[in-house]
Amino acid sequence: MEFSSKLLEKAVNEMSQLPGIGKRTALRLVLHLLKQPKEQTTFLSQSLLNMREDIKFCESCHNISDVEVCEICSNKNRDHQLICVVEDIRDVMAIENTGQFKGIYHVLGGKISPIDGVGPSQLKISSLVEKIKSGNARELIFALSSTMEGDTTNFYIYKQIQDCDIITSTIARGISVGDELEYADEVTLGRSILHRVPFENSFKSN
Amino acid sequence: MEFSSKLLEKAVNEMSQLPGIGKRTALRLVLHLLKQPKEQTTFLSQSLLNMREDIKFCESCHNISDVEVCEICSNKNRDHQLICVVEDIRDVMAIENTGQFKGIYHVLGGKISPIDGVGPSQLKISSLVEKIKSGNARELIFALSSTMEGDTTNFYIYKQIQDCDIITSTIARGISVGDELEYADEVTLGRSILHRVPFENSFKSN
Ligand SMILES: [Zn+2]
Ligand SMILES: [Zn+2]
Repeated sequence: MEFSSKLLEKAVNEMSQLPGIGKRTALRLVLHLLKQPKEQTTFLSQSLLNMREDIKFCESCHNISDVEVCEICSNKNRDHQLICVVEDIRDVMAIENTGQFKGIYHVLGGKISPIDGVGPSQLKISSLVEKIKSGNARELIFALSSTMEGDTTNFYIYKQIQDCDIITSTIARGISVGDELEYADEVTLGRSILHRVPFENSFKSN
Repeated sequence: MEFSSKLLEKAVNEMSQLPGIGKRTALRLVLHLLKQPKEQTTFLSQSLLNMREDIKFCESCHNISDVEVCEICSNKNRDHQLICVVEDIRDVMAIENTGQFKGIYHVLGGKISPIDGVGPSQLKISSLVEKIKSGNARELIFALSSTMEGDTTNFYIYKQIQDCDIITSTIARGISVGDELEYADEVTLGRSILHRVPFENSFKSN
């Protein structure tokens, strides 16, 4: 791409560093900003800078927060003995959205992935293991995505806490509510048969 | 979406103001920035601010430029009597890329679109009409996209200059080079038959 302006070129290049944003998309976004009032660019840039500079991670669960200990961790009405292990804040948001979970979270910040160069030490695993070894948890729910990396991460954590007095579980995988069986992939359908639940449990919401 | 951090929420909201970027995508992009070194966010924000603050539009053709008169308009080797009307800088970049055009451009900044509230006065039409009325152009090439809006804009300009001593043309529409006829849409195929060119012209590159 040949640009008629260095300022434009630089903005496009920086924008296209973002994942999934190619040069063409970056150019479209940047030209959009040029057509909008200057304030839009100021607000966008300033909000990114403020976020990157001032955001905190909860000391206890490592979720993104504006304070030292996040609202979930500091909520006395939640069950602090029930810990759900997730990959990142999006999973916390998704589970919170269901309104079904009353425990607390532990945000790993990723999954073990040798291909992407992510080892256990780059994730918040040791603080989780410590928390469990200190005997402050009754149950640990693994809620990572069911991929090779997710399974590896689950197993890595499991190995370190298997001698602890704690229940471990994983979230149920199965056919989505409302989905037709015939359209489900066979692995999911297979799991949902293997992990069938007592019928009377199927109409309890909690 | 419920956020655990106001800083995060604000950044996501600003990012999702960009066209084609929904809340989920914005969250993904912003979380990516949080995982990268702080410099990446600084560079991105600063390049957007610099661009929005300091970018210029060529006094003559209205293309984006870092100087008062852009490189194309100030190039004495180009044919200043041959003006190609385009919608925005992306069209200039695409045509320049072909290496086939030796004239200059006139960048309208959009198309007339009543639905989007874009009227002729918001586009750089009057300066084009003035330029032509002052007798400084031999040929005007319309290179807007062949949509309702593009056709409307072409016709609006054409009406104002039809009494001027100038040749008007539009870029040829037809089957893409290398494409199979059977896969072409019928409007394009129809036009490419109507606007067939003398055979000896078809193997000249200019
Ligand atoms: Zn927390
Ligand atoms: Zn120019």
